[in-house]
Amino acid sequence: MGDPATPPSSELAAMAIVDGASLKHPFSDRVPVRSIVCRPDGGAGLAGNRVRAGGWVKTGREQGKGSFAFLEVNDGSCPANLQVIVDAGVEELSTLVQTGTCVSVEGVLKVPPEGAKQKIELRVERVLHVGPTDPAKYPIPKTKLSLEFLRDHVHLRPRTNTVALAYLLIMISAVARIRNALAFATHSFFQEHGFLYVHTPIITTSDCEGAGEMFQATTLINEAEKLEKELIENPPPTEADVEAARLTVTQRGEIVAQLKAAKATRDDISASVAELKIAKENLSRLVERAKLKPGIPKKDGKIDYTQDFFARQAFLTVSGQLQVETYACAVTSVYTFGPTFRAENSHTSRHLAEFWMVEPEIAFADLQDDMNCAEAYVKYMCGWLLDKCFDDMELMAKLYDKGCIDRLRMVSSTPFERISYTEAVQLLEEAVKGGKEFEKNVEWGIDLASEHERYLTEDIFKKPVIVYNYPKGIKAFYMRLNDDSKTVAAMDILVPKVGELIGGSQREERYEVIQRRIAEMGLPLEPYEWYLDLRRYGTVKHCGFGLGFERMVLFATGIDNIRDVIPFPRYPGRADL
Amino acid sequence: MGDPATPPSSELAAMAIVDGASLKHPFSDRVPVRSIVCRPDGGAGLAGNRVRAGGWVKTGREQGKGSFAFLEVNDGSCPANLQVIVDAGVEELSTLVQTGTCVSVEGVLKVPPEGAKQKIELRVERVLHVGPTDPAKYPIPKTKLSLEFLRDHVHLRPRTNTVALAYLLIMISAVARIRNALAFATHSFFQEHGFLYVHTPIITTSDCEGAGEMFQATTLINEAEKLEKELIENPPPTEADVEAARLTVTQRGEIVAQLKAAKATRDDISASVAELKIAKENLSRLVERAKLKPGIPKKDGKIDYTQDFFARQAFLTVSGQLQVETYACAVTSVYTFGPTFRAENSHTSRHLAEFWMVEPEIAFADLQDDMNCAEAYVKYMCGWLLDKCFDDMELMAKLYDKGCIDRLRMVSSTPFERISYTEAVQLLEEAVKGGKEFEKNVEWGIDLASEHERYLTEDIFKKPVIVYNYPKGIKAFYMRLNDDSKTVAAMDILVPKVGELIGGSQREERYEVIQRRIAEMGLPLEPYEWYLDLRRYGTVKHCGFGLGFERMVLFATGIDNIRDVIPFPRYPGRADL
Repeated sequence: MGDPATPPSSELAAMAIVDGASLKHPFSDRVPVRSIVCRPDGGAGLAGNRVRAGGWVKTGREQGKGSFAFLEVNDGSCPANLQVIVDAGVEELSTLVQTGTCVSVEGVLKVPPEGAKQKIELRVERVLHVGPTDPAKYPIPKTKLSLEFLRDHVHLRPRTNTVALAYLLIMISAVARIRNALAFATHSFFQEHGFLYVHTPIITTSDCEGAGEMFQATTLINEAEKLEKELIENPPPTEADVEAARLTVTQRGEIVAQLKAAKATRDDISASVAELKIAKENLSRLVERAKLKPGIPKKDGKIDYTQDFFARQAFLTVSGQLQVETYACAVTSVYTFGPTFRAENSHTSRHLAEFWMVEPEIAFADLQDDMNCAEAYVKYMCGWLLDKCFDDMELMAKLYDKGCIDRLRMVSSTPFERISYTEAVQLLEEAVKGGKEFEKNVEWGIDLASEHERYLTEDIFKKPVIVYNYPKGIKAFYMRLNDDSKTVAAMDILVPKVGELIGGSQREERYEVIQRRIAEMGLPLEPYEWYLDLRRYGTVKHCGFGLGFERMVLFATGIDNIRDVIPFPRYPGRADL
Repeated sequence: MGDPATPPSSELAAMAIVDGASLKHPFSDRVPVRSIVCRPDGGAGLAGNRVRAGGWVKTGREQGKGSFAFLEVNDGSCPANLQVIVDAGVEELSTLVQTGTCVSVEGVLKVPPEGAKQKIELRVERVLHVGPTDPAKYPIPKTKLSLEFLRDHVHLRPRTNTVALAYLLIMISAVARIRNALAFATHSFFQEHGFLYVHTPIITTSDCEGAGEMFQATTLINEAEKLEKELIENPPPTEADVEAARLTVTQRGEIVAQLKAAKATRDDISASVAELKIAKENLSRLVERAKLKPGIPKKDGKIDYTQDFFARQAFLTVSGQLQVETYACAVTSVYTFGPTFRAENSHTSRHLAEFWMVEPEIAFADLQDDMNCAEAYVKYMCGWLLDKCFDDMELMAKLYDKGCIDRLRMVSSTPFERISYTEAVQLLEEAVKGGKEFEKNVEWGIDLASEHERYLTEDIFKKPVIVYNYPKGIKAFYMRLNDDSKTVAAMDILVPKVGELIGGSQREERYEVIQRRIAEMGLPLEPYEWYLDLRRYGTVKHCGFGLGFERMVLFATGIDNIRDVIPFPRYPGRADL
């Protein structure tokens, strides 16, 4: 495997002599566009190299009375295009110049004439493949394109492009690269710090917070439909059918008895016994089939979940926290990174039915450690994007959100403000006295609304704010009760642009206290027995938090709607592909 | 953040002077056991340092007539324990020595007396925390412990331990560390080679192969149960109720008409119009409620999925391949790594209902490139474990599978054998002629069974084997038809111990061919229209493969049952936690 295919630009700068072969994609004979143009010299040092490149035409135009064509080719490896020049003698130009055409070409890299924008271009000698696009049939219109429209064509969203609105589509692939960078930064951060990645279950029989609408994962409906179909094709026996079969059994039984009484031959008796056995089997089959009823199986008027795949009701997880605690209380530092689900009928620009969450959990650590970890993690991600994804961030700044790079710089270098919930409420109350209007009234005990959170981080502090020690009444049972008996050791991180990015807490490790808290909140104890076992046996101080991964992508890119930062958004009424 | 908490041992060897503070866990005041004992000098160089450490007691014993105790403490950061010595004056010893007790202690690292097994031990001066375990109540028995038994206690599985069978439990955390290492190796491999990590959807409305039992994700049952409950608490109106309400509307309407005819005052008319309005609203509410029926909503005898959360039937994904192709055909090199599901009633040691898959997809690449990538990836993971997880691999070799390290070495250094399916069948037929017996008959056209696959890799070649060009009849529609029109460009990688580890193919990029193949296989075209669009517009040669992540963990560790290599196994009848 050897060297990475796309070394960071700092390394490339140090390369004095470049061999075209070393630029190649590791598992194809093409050279990624990134390896050519994303170099400090813009690729000029590669002149003279023979390379194969491939990608999709963003724009193309015939020149010199049709004697040659310029193509701007993009392969998604970086935001920049490769300029490609094809002579009419090499290939039919009218197909090549269509936006969306896939081309794979071989040629020699040349320095363009002075005054050109690009530092290198590819002079094609051979066209290896053309994947044409008929512009008359292409489902994406050239005009009136919007992010909303693209959501209805998610399968073409990452690749489509039109001359007029190419920026939207370049942006979609830039978001994909930024999302990828944040995911790998996440793994790198936790691995560097000795955390183990643990896969918590997606299908669960626990309900993390005793709240939140959940999707059910079931095979009952399918099974019922299969049965229904089968019963139509092959109707169940009527009572008369069963009665007739029962009669046959009686008759055959009598025959056997008669033959035995008459001391018939052994062969005759065996034959009649065999017939009786067949009649009995037929009867019991009919009796079983007569019991089959179309519809979902019920018992005592309720759905009979013992017949479901897992022999009980199962759901899609809303959080892996409770489960990952079993690992933190064994191997100390762990994290999850996986999909989570909410079946809430929410149509906002901040909610998805399926989204990804990062949930670290640390043993021998308290709320301060939790805040330190969360702050370090967010800063690390911001620094990572500035370091390794700067070209994409520049594109986002240019096309969508001017302030996004400054925001990353600020967050990666500024200590987060840390204030208690009580202080936060005081600050908001002062703001109200000073004339600030909120839709929702501010008073100690309320759950801070998005408007309050954004005001704290965007207006009062103008930087990330960690609010800690929330009233126990508005937080989950597993958060550690503080000595004041009024608040719990919870913390939220609020950031400009999105508001709440992280929610975490120190967990209640005291068996008696957590048992009391479950009861106080009116939850049943039984489903949490396994969770209580962690406190019964070798209990340990521990803490953790959850970061909504799409929120982080929103924060980094400045994109407004969460549906545009996940490849296949799921929300009420929509689950395309 | 700065330096990693647990630098690789090569770096540690170079550290001449060690400062205790630098060993600290980044987000707690404890020093991970790994940072103390997993050093080339076994920790001896750390003598004299004051540290805080924490973990769970694996074994403990009182010595010197109860004047002090030895504790073997493990915190999951590595397979090794830290030896801890506590004097009776410091803490009550009888609690500390119980297996499973959590301890957090402060003391000074000392070199033990000559002849001791360990190179360093911790002399405790202060006990910061004790999480006791009452051995009389502990749910895990001291004897007759087995991997099967532990599956019934998944929440204690990673941490429980008994003196007698501690090896099983140390092994569970070793498997967790190996699994973590393989996951990060996966991301590192693809990121180093320029692949983007793409999150394909978990909830899907596509069925990847037109086959395979799927779980349904739905809110219909919950909604129906909610409605049913509501209708019991608050019964729907009877026909008489509706009729009465209708009569009220008529009467109020007549009153309004009479008042108007009688030229009554404006106030009187307004008042009676208001009453009419209320009566009308009441009627329409009753009419709506009268329509409510308990049970899952139906239309024309079928379940009405327009009322489900996504307004259509939705499932849990069986593979992200088709969806990730939309990204490969836009940004060239991508991979997924996420959970996948099969609702198959399979009770084997090789199948789970929920498992993780890695699925790369590469544009501008053919079957050869696909095999190269898959081989490089598997080798990379094996090398990674040998390099970064050797202590855990040694533990597995000692406790469970003697050959596991040799297997990793062999795979990471030996070129994989590559043979066509036709050659594979010939070899198997020759083996049969030579006296080898298989349960399933061997002939050209069959899908190779596990016994055939294992025979090829374990007996004939004794190394990984890539079998390629399978008969089209046994493979999926999206695999590229070869020029012989009989085989497709598919490949499977077979490895000793588990058989099939990887399945992949070059994808059919020719629009006419893939359309014909879908029809040939009797599948409907309509659900694949979006997939066909990728071929209609800017089509490109591409390929990919899928690796069952748990199979890779089985291969690496030598563990026999797949339920023991995933933290929370899901299979028919079981989904604990």
